[in-house]
Amino acid sequence: MRIGELSSTSGVPVSTIKYYLREGLLPTGRLTSANQAQYDEHHLRRLTLVRALVDVGGLSIATVREVLDAVDASDSGAVRMVHDGITAVPATDPDAAAEQEASSFLTRCGLPYEPDNPATRSLVAVIATARRLGHPHFTDQLGVYADACRRIAEADVDRVMRHSSVEDVLEGVVVGTVLGDAAMVALRRLAQLQEYRRQSGPR
Amino acid sequence: MRIGELSSTSGVPVSTIKYYLREGLLPTGRLTSANQAQYDEHHLRRLTLVRALVDVGGLSIATVREVLDAVDASDSGAVRMVHDGITAVPATDPDAAAEQEASSFLTRCGLPYEPDNPATRSLVAVIATARRLGHPHFTDQLGVYADACRRIAEADVDRVMRHSSVEDVLEGVVVGTVLGDAAMVALRRLAQLQEYRRQSGPR
Repeated sequence: MRIGELSSTSGVPVSTIKYYLREGLLPTGRLTSANQAQYDEHHLRRLTLVRALVDVGGLSIATVREVLDAVDASDSGAVRMVHDGITAVPATDPDAAAEQEASSFLTRCGLPYEPDNPATRSLVAVIATARRLGHPHFTDQLGVYADACRRIAEADVDRVMRHSSVEDVLEGVVVGTVLGDAAMVALRRLAQLQEYRRQSGPR
Repeated sequence: MRIGELSSTSGVPVSTIKYYLREGLLPTGRLTSANQAQYDEHHLRRLTLVRALVDVGGLSIATVREVLDAVDASDSGAVRMVHDGITAVPATDPDAAAEQEASSFLTRCGLPYEPDNPATRSLVAVIATARRLGHPHFTDQLGVYADACRRIAEADVDRVMRHSSVEDVLEGVVVGTVLGDAAMVALRRLAQLQEYRRQSGPR
């Protein structure tokens, strides 16, 4: 297909496709004349992944390039790279008590405790904030969250691992994780409202 | 207690307490001399709530004032006001297909569909983005999220409703909801990592 068709099929503007080509995020097409190139299914799949990484995941062009290098090298670290890249790391002061609480909570839940993991940093920041606000045992209420998240994560990973190409797996990781965060937050709010109404009785 | 003790007990700087007093978010203390006032447990509870609404919930001073007016009028709408106030509403273009998908998904899950609710707007925005990215049935994967969020919400509401003062209930709503969002997102990431490892076998 020509660049116009690649654009209409993917929904990505021609100018954006040209930018990705210049940045080396998309391999050049097969030249059929001096200024015309043909693109195929491989380009389409790669384009969909790049858009997900950039637009949905908010990854920098440099990080996207690293991810694609890992994909091309069939490096199994690509999923981890994407996963870490889409997890915001909050800026926090060191807090030994919060660190200790996170570590024992995760161990108790059977979840991995890796101090450098962005998600671990994020959890420690939450615990530190709760402590500052006078809630020294915030993780006591998180056991039900850990169980619920394990169920969600099983379904998430089952779904993306079913894809046959590594591009589709990674696209699924980004879209499912980032959009899934927002969906999960919204659904919790709606479930809370319903529960407040139930516990407050008929109005 | 004097303002200095109110500050050290609450962990809120004296200058911030004075700002809240000027803005009418905290009732003035009982004057014991021309320039000295005494504060009590009621001030402390109110101060803790104001700080949670402003610092954790990110509510504007005007919204905090409305919430406190509702608290003082024993208006049962205060929880809903706080809940709506801490839910970000994304700016989105109208999307009839996404709206329809959200409505039938929520109905199927037994969750309330209220078009103007900020959480509903947020869910519609997620569905619209997924559609634009070529995932026309994103809600198919959200059933497990809805179940998990219902369990979390039950525990959340049970916990905050146990408080006896409305200030403590509202403080619990803000802290539990906002910090709970971040904790839930972090725990899902960690559970996903563990599940990726499990499904990929020993490395």
